[in-house]
Amino acid sequence: MRPWLLTLAPFEGDARPRFLQIAHAVARDIQSGRLRPGDKLPGTRTLAKELNLHRNTVAAAYDELRSEGWIEASRGKGTIVSRDLPEVAARPPRVQASHDARVGYPLERFASPADAPWPEPRSGVLALAGIADGRLLPMTEFARAYRRAALSLQATAGHYPSSSLGHPRLIRALKEMLATTRGISRERGLIVTRGSQMGLFLLVEYLLRPGDVVAVENPGYAFGWEAFRRKGVRLVPVPIDGGGLRIDALREIVRHNAIRAVFTTPNVQYPTTVTLTPGRRRELLALAAEHRIVVVEDDFVHEYRYDGRPVLPLAAQDRDGVVIYLGSLSKVFMPGPRLGYVVAPTPVIEGLAWLRELVDVCGDPILEVAMAELVAEGVLQRHVWRMRKIFEERRDALAQAMRSELGGVVRFRPPAGGPTVWCEVDVDIDVAGWVERAKARGVWFNSGSRFFLHEARPSLSLSFVSLAPSELREAVRRMARGLADLRSRK
Amino acid sequence: MRPWLLTLAPFEGDARPRFLQIAHAVARDIQSGRLRPGDKLPGTRTLAKELNLHRNTVAAAYDELRSEGWIEASRGKGTIVSRDLPEVAARPPRVQASHDARVGYPLERFASPADAPWPEPRSGVLALAGIADGRLLPMTEFARAYRRAALSLQATAGHYPSSSLGHPRLIRALKEMLATTRGISRERGLIVTRGSQMGLFLLVEYLLRPGDVVAVENPGYAFGWEAFRRKGVRLVPVPIDGGGLRIDALREIVRHNAIRAVFTTPNVQYPTTVTLTPGRRRELLALAAEHRIVVVEDDFVHEYRYDGRPVLPLAAQDRDGVVIYLGSLSKVFMPGPRLGYVVAPTPVIEGLAWLRELVDVCGDPILEVAMAELVAEGVLQRHVWRMRKIFEERRDALAQAMRSELGGVVRFRPPAGGPTVWCEVDVDIDVAGWVERAKARGVWFNSGSRFFLHEARPSLSLSFVSLAPSELREAVRRMARGLADLRSRK
Repeated sequence: MRPWLLTLAPFEGDARPRFLQIAHAVARDIQSGRLRPGDKLPGTRTLAKELNLHRNTVAAAYDELRSEGWIEASRGKGTIVSRDLPEVAARPPRVQASHDARVGYPLERFASPADAPWPEPRSGVLALAGIADGRLLPMTEFARAYRRAALSLQATAGHYPSSSLGHPRLIRALKEMLATTRGISRERGLIVTRGSQMGLFLLVEYLLRPGDVVAVENPGYAFGWEAFRRKGVRLVPVPIDGGGLRIDALREIVRHNAIRAVFTTPNVQYPTTVTLTPGRRRELLALAAEHRIVVVEDDFVHEYRYDGRPVLPLAAQDRDGVVIYLGSLSKVFMPGPRLGYVVAPTPVIEGLAWLRELVDVCGDPILEVAMAELVAEGVLQRHVWRMRKIFEERRDALAQAMRSELGGVVRFRPPAGGPTVWCEVDVDIDVAGWVERAKARGVWFNSGSRFFLHEARPSLSLSFVSLAPSELREAVRRMARGLADLRSRK
Repeated sequence: MRPWLLTLAPFEGDARPRFLQIAHAVARDIQSGRLRPGDKLPGTRTLAKELNLHRNTVAAAYDELRSEGWIEASRGKGTIVSRDLPEVAARPPRVQASHDARVGYPLERFASPADAPWPEPRSGVLALAGIADGRLLPMTEFARAYRRAALSLQATAGHYPSSSLGHPRLIRALKEMLATTRGISRERGLIVTRGSQMGLFLLVEYLLRPGDVVAVENPGYAFGWEAFRRKGVRLVPVPIDGGGLRIDALREIVRHNAIRAVFTTPNVQYPTTVTLTPGRRRELLALAAEHRIVVVEDDFVHEYRYDGRPVLPLAAQDRDGVVIYLGSLSKVFMPGPRLGYVVAPTPVIEGLAWLRELVDVCGDPILEVAMAELVAEGVLQRHVWRMRKIFEERRDALAQAMRSELGGVVRFRPPAGGPTVWCEVDVDIDVAGWVERAKARGVWFNSGSRFFLHEARPSLSLSFVSLAPSELREAVRRMARGLADLRSRK
């Protein structure tokens, strides 16, 4: 007999009779695969002794399990797990019986939400973690555009939109914007999504299969990795240096792995903010074409470039149809309305549209028409021009404050674009402890460790776009105080 | 040697050298599972002859494949598919190399969107297919609430919301509404979703595994079935009669199948509009508790009941935590904003919230606060009261017109609730042909055949909520004209 210990954890307030609790615990162990068809169960006497219960209680539990078909009597072996449980056997091993007794079915495990990537701003707390400054948003224009869109769509508002691609007006406006400012062909297909995250989710679900291998930047956009992991995709890290993704390392990986896709942020690498060099761009596209690798280009902050000329995306240079382009209005405008888009060859977009119908049928036509109007009227572009100047000042204010307050412990290069500064931290500093101490001093910021696939280096990712220069200076002073607190406690 | 024919389809305009095209075709066959690790490949001479190419070209292709690790030399066997391709072997057989040459990777197959369930209303066309009447919506109040919400959330609009469950104000408002009007405990967890479709998608993805078996109503909500099918879930049909879901048939199914969930619309069955009897409700809940079956209750039109008293949902009677409740504001208000919710035991809701972060991070806080305000201020409830009276008149107008114009060919019972009339049609009528002819006469309606899992019966599902009584009468006249056209062509 295989060793087996019943995972019996009676729940507070579980009003069910004891025998039912035992029966359910055994059924859970069968569902979770801990007990398999044909496995022998302990005798009622043995189990009763182990659980410190009356033997009749265990016998009643076994009766219940037998009547439900979970267990059966077997000649010469006593009681065994029923051999006829096909769906149980087919269930993959990752399913765990972590369910509440009141739920009655096994639940998939999920990562703890404790490490939530975005804090909620609280009064008095300065968060170096925003992606826009709400106070500077053209909210009145937005609300006005929304009202106009709602009234203009009223006649047809009782019907679902006829397409899950997005409202034709927004598709037109986005294609026009992408063609004129980013050199992306209007011939490519485009689907409007709920932020670029939905674009990524749909791509993972549509293009990839469990066991596929995908190369990701390391450090990189760790939150996005979860969608790959849940699908059963294996992630292979590619290192980053001052020129962006290291193509030599990628080439070596491709030689030894059947890489299906590369997930990359070539414009402003997340989180290090470096830009992929022109030579590496050509190499990446050639490598992808040669090995039929999909390049998923996440261009999440195209508009916010402070130094030098804007860099055209890989999608603009893509001659072989290997690039799938993800964009977002979350950073350009604000994250709440959840607007993003995917640009890809038409067959891919058709597949994503089909899958998207299953996810949420379609987007919100009122919101999409309102945003199309803001784009067509130039409101969004004017906002971006204004923010670029303001964000550049904020970047410089943060950099200066960091140099004067934290110069001895952090190394960084002011980013050429994007909302964040990436800094490496002296290895003798406990970054998690610093984050905690600083929180007590009224400043919230991200440790960089979550952005590494393996072996995190001590680092920080500090956003400067949602705070004014004076707030940034105060935030850095609080960071310094938190660091002093940490050191004095050592 | 297993027989193997290279699926080489050279694409127009493929500028790559011939040897690369061959190498890629072989790699595709390996990726698609047509060629498996260890399979022997034909010799270069044999393949060159088969493809009518020079032998050097094929040899170059094999060199390329060898350098990429796809194939290897094997003593005594010649060239074989590499044995060390773990991710390829793990890929399920359904992956087809149906890709476009410009795409460069295999695409999942999908159902044709030709059978789109909702038409776009066009001028002059009367569509018996809406789920609300846009013209009667309190759009100005909605736009005003949206504006207030946008301005009130401005300060924090640069950050992502801290929870993927939905805005706390909307969660409170919905829980209050569900407790007071539907008897659903406030203790249950609730997540706001993009319409009930996202609720269903998350449930399927979170609770079910490929190979699971789910019982569905037949006829039933066919669009929702697609989410199950894509997951690899097997659907078992349960027949419907005048008392709703036939529990005797379900019991028989449960006896022979390990049913994991039942997907049901007990209030106003979709599409037949019948209501599950009180006795069957008790039986269903007992059966579910006994066999640990999840009851997914889709209460998509709770508010629209014209005859008799409102029926409390199964979720209000659920003592064992077996019911997961799906609701929607699409029919109560309008479909565009995509607002729905799932009510379930807290561990399930936590799991859905985690998965939902991967799908689109979170909902739109502005929209959610605006809707919370409309609920809290009673605007939505007043709208529902007003619509219930108007929809009842429309139901009666449609029924009367159908009796006078189509009495000889359709049989129906005016529904006690919901937006549609379900009719059975004389078996000698070609319903698809009728739909086509009627379209030419300016009326759009749904054949009922799409709602059957197997063996459709001639039937129609006609919505009456988006058209005024005079429009409904005209629509039925056009239906009659379409039918006459069909018959005269026979």
